[in-house]
Amino acid sequence: MSSHTHDMQACIAACLDCYQTCLSTALHHCLEAGGRHTEPDHMRLMMACAEMCRASAHIMLTGSSVHRQSCGACAEICSACADDCERVGDMDACVAACRACAETCRAMAA
Amino acid sequence: MSSHTHDMQACIAACLDCYQTCLSTALHHCLEAGGRHTEPDHMRLMMACAEMCRASAHIMLTGSSVHRQSCGACAEICSACADDCERVGDMDACVAACRACAETCRAMAA
Amino acid sequence: MSSHTHDMQACIAACLDCYQTCLSTALHHCLEAGGRHTEPDHMRLMMACAEMCRASAHIMLTGSSVHRQSCGACAEICSACADDCERVGDMDACVAACRACAETCRAMAA
Amino acid sequence: MSSHTHDMQACIAACLDCYQTCLSTALHHCLEAGGRHTEPDHMRLMMACAEMCRASAHIMLTGSSVHRQSCGACAEICSACADDCERVGDMDACVAACRACAETCRAMAA
Repeated sequence: MSSHTHDMQACIAACLDCYQTCLSTALHHCLEAGGRHTEPDHMRLMMACAEMCRASAHIMLTGSSVHRQSCGACAEICSACADDCERVGDMDACVAACRACAETCRAMAA
Repeated sequence: MSSHTHDMQACIAACLDCYQTCLSTALHHCLEAGGRHTEPDHMRLMMACAEMCRASAHIMLTGSSVHRQSCGACAEICSACADDCERVGDMDACVAACRACAETCRAMAA
Repeated sequence: MSSHTHDMQACIAACLDCYQTCLSTALHHCLEAGGRHTEPDHMRLMMACAEMCRASAHIMLTGSSVHRQSCGACAEICSACADDCERVGDMDACVAACRACAETCRAMAA
Repeated sequence: MSSHTHDMQACIAACLDCYQTCLSTALHHCLEAGGRHTEPDHMRLMMACAEMCRASAHIMLTGSSVHRQSCGACAEICSACADDCERVGDMDACVAACRACAETCRAMAA
Protein backbone atom coordinates (compact mmCIF):
# COMPACT_ATOMS: atom_id res chain seq x y z
CA MET A 1 0.00 0.00 0.00
CA SER A 2 2.94 2.26 -0.72
CA SER A 3 0.60 3.91 -3.25
CA HIS A 4 -0.80 6.10 -0.48
CA THR A 5 0.85 9.06 1.24
CA HIS A 6 1.85 8.76 4.86
CA ASP A 7 -1.04 10.99 5.96
CA MET A 8 -3.56 8.95 4.02
CA GLN A 9 -2.16 5.71 5.42
CA ALA A 10 -2.64 7.10 8.92
CA CYS A 11 -6.21 8.12 8.08
CA ILE A 12 -7.03 4.66 6.67
CA ALA A 13 -5.66 3.11 9.87
CA ALA A 14 -7.71 5.48 12.06
CA CYS A 15 -10.88 4.67 10.09
CA LEU A 16 -10.33 0.91 10.35
CA ASP A 17 -9.60 1.24 14.06
CA CYS A 18 -12.77 3.26 14.66
CA TYR A 19 -14.79 0.80 12.55
CA GLN A 20 -13.59 -2.15 14.62
CA THR A 21 -14.06 -0.35 17.92
CA CYS A 22 -17.62 0.81 17.17
CA LEU A 23 -18.78 -2.53 15.77
CA SER A 24 -17.22 -4.64 18.49
CA THR A 25 -18.27 -2.32 21.32
CA ALA A 26 -21.88 -2.15 20.11
CA LEU A 27 -22.22 -5.92 19.84
CA HIS A 28 -20.33 -6.80 23.03
CA HIS A 29 -20.17 -4.03 25.63
CA CYS A 30 -23.46 -2.29 24.72
CA LEU A 31 -25.59 -5.42 24.28
CA GLU A 32 -24.27 -6.87 27.54
CA ALA A 33 -24.63 -3.65 29.55
CA GLY A 34 -28.18 -2.86 28.40
CA GLY A 35 -29.96 0.24 29.69
CA ARG A 36 -28.90 3.39 27.90
CA HIS A 37 -26.39 1.32 25.93
CA THR A 38 -29.17 -0.43 24.01
CA GLU A 39 -31.30 2.65 23.34
CA PRO A 40 -32.22 2.20 19.66
CA ASP A 41 -30.80 5.56 18.57
CA HIS A 42 -27.46 4.91 20.28
CA MET A 43 -27.06 1.46 18.74
CA ARG A 44 -28.10 2.77 15.31
CA LEU A 45 -25.55 5.58 15.45
CA MET A 46 -22.83 3.14 16.51
CA MET A 47 -23.60 0.88 13.56
CA ALA A 48 -23.87 3.83 11.15
CA CYS A 49 -20.52 5.16 12.35
CA ALA A 50 -18.87 1.75 11.94
CA GLU A 51 -20.14 1.57 8.36
CA MET A 52 -19.07 5.11 7.43
CA CYS A 53 -15.55 4.53 8.81
CA ARG A 54 -15.30 1.27 6.88
CA ALA A 55 -16.43 2.94 3.66
CA SER A 56 -14.14 5.91 4.21
CA ALA A 57 -11.12 3.60 4.52
CA HIS A 58 -12.24 1.66 1.44
CA ILE A 59 -12.61 4.77 -0.72
CA MET A 60 -9.14 5.99 0.29
CA LEU A 61 -7.78 2.56 -0.64
CA THR A 62 -9.28 2.85 -4.13
CA GLY A 63 -7.09 5.91 -4.72
CA SER A 64 -9.93 8.02 -6.13
CA SER A 65 -9.86 11.73 -5.32
CA VAL A 66 -13.51 11.57 -4.22
CA HIS A 67 -12.22 10.44 -0.83
CA ARG A 68 -12.62 14.11 0.07
CA GLN A 69 -16.40 13.72 0.14
CA SER A 70 -16.43 10.47 2.08
CA CYS A 71 -13.83 11.69 4.58
CA GLY A 72 -15.91 14.83 5.14
CA ALA A 73 -19.04 12.82 5.91
CA CYS A 74 -17.02 10.44 8.10
CA ALA A 75 -15.61 13.31 10.17
CA GLU A 76 -19.13 14.57 10.93
CA ILE A 77 -20.58 11.15 11.73
CA CYS A 78 -17.64 10.21 13.99
CA SER A 79 -18.01 13.49 15.83
CA ALA A 80 -21.73 12.84 16.39
CA CYS A 81 -20.96 9.31 17.59
CA ALA A 82 -18.29 10.54 20.02
CA ASP A 83 -20.77 13.04 21.51
CA ASP A 84 -23.42 10.35 21.91
CA CYS A 85 -20.96 7.92 23.50
CA GLU A 86 -20.01 10.63 26.02
CA ARG A 87 -23.70 11.14 26.84
CA VAL A 88 -24.23 7.40 27.39
CA GLY A 89 -21.06 7.12 29.47
CA ASP A 90 -18.61 4.28 30.07
CA MET A 91 -17.70 4.31 26.38
CA ASP A 92 -14.18 5.76 26.62
CA ALA A 93 -12.53 3.59 23.95
CA CYS A 94 -15.26 4.50 21.46
CA VAL A 95 -15.04 8.20 22.26
CA ALA A 96 -11.29 8.18 21.74
CA ALA A 97 -11.44 6.21 18.46
CA CYS A 98 -14.22 8.43 17.08
CA ARG A 99 -12.44 11.68 18.03
CA ALA A 100 -9.17 10.49 16.48
CA CYS A 101 -10.92 9.36 13.29
CA ALA A 102 -12.92 12.60 13.03
CA GLU A 103 -9.76 14.68 13.31
CA THR A 104 -7.77 12.83 10.68
CA CYS A 105 -10.75 12.60 8.29
CA ARG A 106 -11.38 16.33 8.64
CA ALA A 107 -7.79 17.03 7.61
CA MET A 108 -8.05 14.60 4.68
CA ALA A 109 -11.28 16.25 3.47
CA ALA A 110 -9.82 19.73 3.42
CA MET B 1 -38.49 -2.64 6.22
CA SER B 2 -41.70 -0.80 6.90
CA SER B 3 -39.63 1.22 9.40
CA HIS B 4 -38.55 3.57 6.61
CA THR B 5 -40.58 6.25 4.85
CA HIS B 6 -41.53 5.77 1.23
CA ASP B 7 -38.95 8.36 0.10
CA MET B 8 -36.20 6.71 2.07
CA GLN B 9 -37.14 3.29 0.72
CA ALA B 10 -36.84 4.70 -2.80
CA CYS B 11 -33.44 6.20 -1.98
CA ILE B 12 -32.18 2.90 -0.52
CA ALA B 13 -33.31 1.14 -3.70
CA ALA B 14 -31.60 3.74 -5.92
CA CYS B 15 -28.36 3.39 -3.94
CA LEU B 16 -28.38 -0.41 -4.16
CA ASP B 17 -29.16 -0.23 -7.87
CA CYS B 18 -26.28 2.19 -8.50
CA TYR B 19 -23.94 0.06 -6.36
CA GLN B 20 -24.74 -3.05 -8.39
CA THR B 21 -24.52 -1.25 -11.72
CA CYS B 22 -21.14 0.39 -10.99
CA LEU B 23 -19.55 -2.75 -9.55
CA SER B 24 -20.81 -5.08 -12.24
CA THR B 25 -20.08 -2.66 -15.11
CA ALA B 26 -16.53 -1.99 -13.90
CA LEU B 27 -15.68 -5.69 -13.58
CA HIS B 28 -17.42 -6.86 -16.75
CA HIS B 29 -17.95 -4.17 -19.38
CA CYS B 30 -14.94 -1.99 -18.52
CA LEU B 31 -12.40 -4.78 -18.03
CA GLU B 32 -13.52 -6.44 -21.26
CA ALA B 33 -13.58 -3.24 -23.31
CA GLY B 34 -10.18 -1.96 -22.18
CA GLY B 35 -8.83 1.35 -23.53
CA ARG B 36 -10.31 4.35 -21.75
CA HIS B 37 -12.53 1.98 -19.76
CA THR B 38 -9.54 0.65 -17.83
CA GLU B 39 -7.86 4.00 -17.19
CA PRO B 40 -6.88 3.73 -13.52
CA ASP B 41 -8.74 6.88 -12.47
CA HIS B 42 -11.96 5.75 -14.16
CA MET B 43 -11.88 2.30 -12.57
CA ARG B 44 -11.03 3.78 -9.17
CA LEU B 45 -13.94 6.21 -9.33
CA MET B 46 -16.31 3.41 -10.37
CA MET B 47 -15.23 1.32 -7.37
CA ALA B 48 -15.37 4.30 -5.01
CA CYS B 49 -18.88 5.16 -6.22
CA ALA B 50 -20.06 1.57 -5.77
CA GLU B 51 -18.76 1.61 -2.18
CA MET B 52 -20.31 4.97 -1.30
CA CYS B 53 -23.72 3.91 -2.67
CA ARG B 54 -23.52 0.67 -0.70
CA ALA B 55 -22.63 2.52 2.50
CA SER B 56 -25.29 5.14 1.92
CA ALA B 57 -27.98 2.45 1.64
CA HIS B 58 -26.60 0.72 4.74
CA ILE B 59 -26.66 3.86 6.86
CA MET B 60 -30.25 4.60 5.85
CA LEU B 61 -31.15 1.02 6.81
CA THR B 62 -29.71 1.55 10.30
CA GLY B 63 -32.30 4.29 10.84
CA SER B 64 -29.76 6.79 12.22
CA SER B 65 -30.34 10.44 11.37
CA VAL B 66 -26.70 10.77 10.28
CA HIS B 67 -27.82 9.43 6.90
CA ARG B 68 -27.94 13.10 5.94
CA GLN B 69 -24.12 13.23 5.89
CA SER B 70 -23.64 9.98 3.98
CA CYS B 71 -26.40 10.82 1.47
CA GLY B 72 -24.76 14.20 0.87
CA ALA B 73 -21.39 12.62 0.13
CA CYS B 74 -23.06 9.96 -2.03
CA ALA B 75 -24.84 12.59 -4.14
CA GLU B 76 -21.53 14.31 -4.91
CA ILE B 77 -19.63 11.10 -5.67
CA CYS B 78 -22.41 9.75 -7.93
CA SER B 79 -22.48 13.03 -9.80
CA ALA B 80 -18.71 12.88 -10.36
CA CYS B 81 -18.99 9.25 -11.51
CA ALA B 82 -21.80 10.09 -13.96
CA ASP B 83 -19.68 12.88 -15.47
CA ASP B 84 -16.69 10.57 -15.86
CA CYS B 85 -18.80 7.81 -17.41
CA GLU B 86 -20.11 10.33 -19.97
CA ARG B 87 -16.52 11.33 -20.79
CA VAL B 88 -15.47 7.69 -21.30
CA GLY B 89 -18.57 6.96 -23.38
CA ASP B 90 -20.63 3.79 -23.94
CA MET B 91 -21.55 3.76 -20.24
CA ASP B 92 -25.22 4.72 -20.50
CA ALA B 93 -26.56 2.39 -17.81
CA CYS B 94 -24.00 3.68 -15.33
CA VAL B 95 -24.70 7.32 -16.17
CA ALA B 96 -28.42 6.78 -15.63
CA ALA B 97 -28.00 4.89 -12.34
CA CYS B 98 -25.56 7.50 -11.00
CA ARG B 99 -27.75 10.44 -11.99
CA ALA B 100 -30.84 8.85 -10.41
CA CYS B 101 -28.95 8.01 -7.22
CA ALA B 102 -27.41 11.49 -6.98
CA GLU B 103 -30.82 13.13 -7.29
CA THR B 104 -32.55 11.05 -4.63
CA CYS B 105 -29.57 11.26 -2.25
CA ARG B 106 -29.45 15.04 -2.65
CA ALA B 107 -33.11 15.26 -1.62
CA MET B 108 -32.52 12.92 1.34
CA ALA B 109 -29.55 15.01 2.54
CA ALA B 110 -31.49 18.27 2.54
CA MET C 1 -26.02 -6.56 -15.10
CA SER C 2 -26.82 -8.72 -18.09
CA SER C 3 -23.40 -10.31 -17.42
CA HIS C 4 -25.02 -12.68 -14.92
CA THR C 5 -27.28 -15.67 -15.61
CA HIS C 6 -30.92 -15.52 -14.62
CA ASP C 7 -30.32 -17.88 -11.68
CA MET C 8 -27.42 -15.82 -10.40
CA GLN C 9 -29.42 -12.61 -10.74
CA ALA C 10 -32.15 -14.19 -8.61
CA CYS C 11 -29.58 -15.25 -6.01
CA ILE C 12 -28.06 -11.76 -5.87
CA ALA C 13 -31.55 -10.33 -5.34
CA ALA C 14 -32.32 -12.86 -2.58
CA CYS C 15 -29.04 -12.05 -0.83
CA LEU C 16 -29.63 -8.28 -0.97
CA ASP C 17 -33.20 -8.79 0.26
CA CYS C 18 -32.05 -10.92 3.20
CA TYR C 19 -29.27 -8.41 3.99
CA GLN C 20 -31.75 -5.53 4.15
CA THR C 21 -34.31 -7.50 6.14
CA CYS C 22 -31.81 -8.73 8.76
CA LEU C 23 -30.11 -5.36 9.21
CA SER C 24 -33.31 -3.34 9.35
CA THR C 25 -35.15 -5.83 11.58
CA ALA C 26 -32.27 -6.05 14.06
CA LEU C 27 -31.95 -2.28 14.40
CA HIS C 28 -35.69 -1.51 14.45
CA HIS C 29 -37.93 -4.39 15.49
CA CYS C 30 -35.44 -6.18 17.77
CA LEU C 31 -34.05 -3.09 19.53
CA GLU C 32 -37.57 -1.77 20.11
CA ALA C 33 -39.02 -5.09 21.30
CA GLY C 34 -36.19 -5.92 23.72
CA GLY C 35 -36.32 -9.15 25.76
CA ARG C 36 -35.22 -12.16 23.78
CA HIS C 37 -34.87 -9.92 20.72
CA THR C 38 -31.86 -8.17 22.22
CA GLU C 39 -30.12 -11.27 23.56
CA PRO C 40 -26.50 -10.66 22.51
CA ASP C 41 -26.18 -13.93 20.57
CA HIS C 42 -29.36 -13.27 18.60
CA MET C 43 -28.34 -9.72 17.65
CA ARG C 44 -24.83 -10.91 16.74
CA LEU C 45 -26.16 -13.63 14.47
CA MET C 46 -28.53 -11.17 12.80
CA MET C 47 -25.65 -8.80 12.07
CA ALA C 48 -23.36 -11.63 10.93
CA CYS C 49 -26.08 -12.93 8.60
CA ALA C 50 -26.65 -9.46 7.14
CA GLU C 51 -22.92 -9.14 6.42
CA MET C 52 -22.58 -12.60 4.85
CA CYS C 53 -25.57 -11.98 2.56
CA ARG C 54 -24.14 -8.62 1.53
CA ALA C 55 -20.73 -10.17 0.79
CA SER C 56 -22.27 -13.10 -1.06
CA ALA C 57 -24.16 -10.72 -3.39
CA HIS C 58 -20.98 -8.67 -3.88
CA ILE C 59 -18.86 -11.67 -4.82
CA MET C 60 -21.44 -12.85 -7.35
CA LEU C 61 -21.45 -9.33 -8.82
CA THR C 62 -17.67 -9.50 -9.33
CA GLY C 63 -18.20 -12.47 -11.65
CA SER C 64 -15.47 -14.58 -10.02
CA SER C 65 -16.10 -18.32 -9.85
CA VAL C 66 -15.19 -18.31 -6.15
CA HIS C 67 -18.79 -17.31 -5.48
CA ARG C 68 -19.28 -21.03 -4.87
CA GLN C 69 -17.41 -20.75 -1.57
CA SER C 70 -19.16 -17.59 -0.38
CA CYS C 71 -22.60 -18.88 -1.42
CA GLY C 72 -21.94 -22.10 0.49
CA ALA C 73 -21.06 -20.21 3.68
CA CYS C 74 -24.03 -17.88 3.16
CA ALA C 75 -26.45 -20.80 2.88
CA GLU C 76 -25.29 -22.21 6.21
CA ILE C 77 -25.34 -18.87 8.04
CA CYS C 78 -28.79 -17.96 6.71
CA SER C 79 -30.10 -21.33 7.79
CA ALA C 80 -28.71 -20.83 11.31
CA CYS C 81 -30.23 -17.34 11.43
CA ALA C 82 -33.66 -18.61 10.31
CA ASP C 83 -33.59 -21.23 13.07
CA ASP C 84 -32.67 -18.66 15.67
CA CYS C 85 -35.36 -16.24 14.48
CA GLU C 86 -37.94 -19.04 14.81
CA ARG C 87 -36.74 -19.70 18.38
CA VAL C 88 -37.05 -16.01 19.31
CA GLY C 89 -40.46 -15.74 17.65
CA ASP C 90 -42.32 -12.86 15.98
CA MET C 91 -39.60 -12.70 13.32
CA ASP C 92 -41.55 -14.05 10.35
CA ALA C 93 -40.16 -11.72 7.68
CA CYS C 94 -36.61 -12.58 8.72
CA VAL C 95 -37.29 -16.30 8.77
CA ALA C 96 -38.75 -16.14 5.26
CA ALA C 97 -35.91 -14.03 3.84
CA CYS C 98 -33.26 -16.26 5.42
CA ARG C 99 -34.88 -19.49 4.21
CA ALA C 100 -35.23 -18.13 0.66
CA CYS C 101 -31.64 -16.90 0.61
CA ALA C 102 -30.29 -20.17 2.04
CA GLU C 103 -32.09 -22.18 -0.65
CA THR C 104 -30.89 -20.15 -3.60
CA CYS C 105 -27.34 -19.89 -2.24
CA ARG C 106 -27.20 -23.64 -1.70
CA ALA C 107 -28.11 -24.19 -5.35
CA MET C 108 -25.54 -21.62 -6.48
CA ALA C 109 -22.80 -23.30 -4.41
CA ALA C 110 -23.42 -26.75 -5.87
CA MET D 1 -11.85 -5.33 21.29
CA SER D 2 -10.76 -7.30 24.31
CA SER D 3 -13.91 -9.36 23.72
CA HIS D 4 -12.01 -11.56 21.27
CA THR D 5 -9.38 -14.20 22.00
CA HIS D 6 -5.79 -13.58 21.01
CA ASP D 7 -6.06 -16.04 18.09
CA MET D 8 -9.20 -14.41 16.81
CA GLN D 9 -7.66 -10.95 17.09
CA ALA D 10 -4.74 -12.17 14.99
CA CYS D 11 -7.13 -13.62 12.40
CA ILE D 12 -9.11 -10.36 12.22
CA ALA D 13 -5.85 -8.48 11.67
CA ALA D 14 -4.74 -10.92 8.94
CA CYS D 15 -8.10 -10.57 7.17
CA LEU D 16 -8.01 -6.77 7.27
CA ASP D 17 -4.41 -6.79 6.04
CA CYS D 18 -5.27 -9.10 3.14
CA TYR D 19 -8.35 -7.00 2.31
CA GLN D 20 -6.30 -3.82 2.12
CA THR D 21 -3.50 -5.45 0.14
CA CYS D 22 -5.79 -7.04 -2.47
CA LEU D 23 -7.93 -3.92 -2.96
CA SER D 24 -5.04 -1.51 -3.12
CA THR D 25 -2.88 -3.75 -5.33
CA ALA D 26 -5.71 -4.38 -7.81
CA LEU D 27 -6.52 -0.69 -8.18
CA HIS D 28 -2.93 0.58 -8.24
CA HIS D 29 -0.31 -1.99 -9.26
CA CYS D 30 -2.54 -4.12 -11.52
CA LEU D 31 -4.33 -1.27 -13.31
CA GLU D 32 -1.02 0.51 -13.92
CA ALA D 33 0.87 -2.61 -15.05
CA GLY D 34 -1.82 -3.85 -17.47
CA GLY D 35 -1.25 -7.04 -19.47
CA ARG D 36 -1.93 -10.15 -17.45
CA HIS D 37 -2.60 -7.94 -14.42
CA THR D 38 -5.82 -6.64 -15.94
CA GLU D 39 -7.12 -9.96 -17.24
CA PRO D 40 -10.79 -9.84 -16.19
CA ASP D 41 -10.67 -13.09 -14.20
CA HIS D 42 -7.59 -11.98 -12.25
CA MET D 43 -9.09 -8.61 -11.33
CA ARG D 44 -12.42 -10.23 -10.40
CA LEU D 45 -10.73 -12.73 -8.11
CA MET D 46 -8.71 -9.95 -6.46
CA MET D 47 -11.88 -7.98 -5.76
CA ALA D 48 -13.77 -11.07 -4.59
CA CYS D 49 -10.92 -11.96 -2.24
CA ALA D 50 -10.81 -8.43 -0.82
CA GLU D 51 -14.55 -8.61 -0.10
CA MET D 52 -14.43 -12.06 1.51
CA CYS D 53 -11.55 -11.02 3.79
CA ARG D 54 -13.43 -7.88 4.78
CA ALA D 55 -16.59 -9.86 5.54
CA SER D 56 -14.66 -12.53 7.42
CA ALA D 57 -13.13 -9.89 9.73
CA HIS D 58 -16.54 -8.28 10.20
CA ILE D 59 -18.25 -11.53 11.17
CA MET D 60 -15.51 -12.30 13.71
CA LEU D 61 -15.99 -8.81 15.14
CA THR D 62 -19.72 -9.48 15.65
CA GLY D 63 -18.80 -12.32 18.01
CA SER D 64 -21.20 -14.81 16.41
CA SER D 65 -20.08 -18.44 16.29
CA VAL D 66 -20.98 -18.59 12.58
CA HIS D 67 -17.54 -17.13 11.91
CA ARG D 68 -16.56 -20.75 11.33
CA GLN D 69 -18.44 -20.78 8.02
CA SER D 70 -17.13 -17.42 6.81
CA CYS D 71 -13.56 -18.20 7.85
CA GLY D 72 -13.77 -21.52 5.98
CA ALA D 73 -14.89 -19.80 2.78
CA CYS D 74 -12.27 -17.09 3.26
CA ALA D 75 -9.46 -19.66 3.58
CA GLU D 76 -10.43 -21.24 0.26
CA ILE D 77 -10.84 -17.95 -1.60
CA CYS D 78 -7.53 -16.58 -0.30
CA SER D 79 -5.77 -19.75 -1.34
CA ALA D 80 -7.22 -19.47 -4.87
CA CYS D 81 -6.19 -15.81 -5.03
CA ALA D 82 -2.63 -16.60 -3.89
CA ASP D 83 -2.33 -19.24 -6.63
CA ASP D 84 -3.60 -16.84 -9.27
CA CYS D 85 -1.25 -14.07 -8.11
CA GLU D 86 1.68 -16.50 -8.41
CA ARG D 87 0.59 -17.36 -11.97
CA VAL D 88 0.39 -13.66 -12.94
CA GLY D 89 3.74 -12.90 -11.28
CA ASP D 90 5.17 -9.78 -9.66
CA MET D 91 2.46 -9.96 -6.98
CA ASP D 92 4.59 -11.00 -4.00
CA ALA D 93 2.88 -8.84 -1.35
CA CYS D 94 -0.51 -10.19 -2.38
CA VAL D 95 0.66 -13.78 -2.39
CA ALA D 96 2.09 -13.38 1.12
CA ALA D 97 -1.00 -11.65 2.52
CA CYS D 98 -3.35 -14.24 0.97
CA ARG D 99 -1.29 -17.20 2.22
CA ALA D 100 -1.13 -15.77 5.75
CA CYS D 101 -4.85 -15.03 5.79
CA ALA D 102 -5.75 -18.47 4.42
CA GLU D 103 -3.70 -20.19 7.11
CA THR D 104 -5.17 -18.29 10.05
CA CYS D 105 -8.73 -18.55 8.67
CA ARG D 106 -8.34 -22.29 8.18
CA ALA D 107 -7.36 -22.66 11.84
CA MET D 108 -10.27 -20.46 12.95
CA ALA D 109 -12.76 -22.51 10.90
CA ALA D 110 -11.68 -25.83 12.41
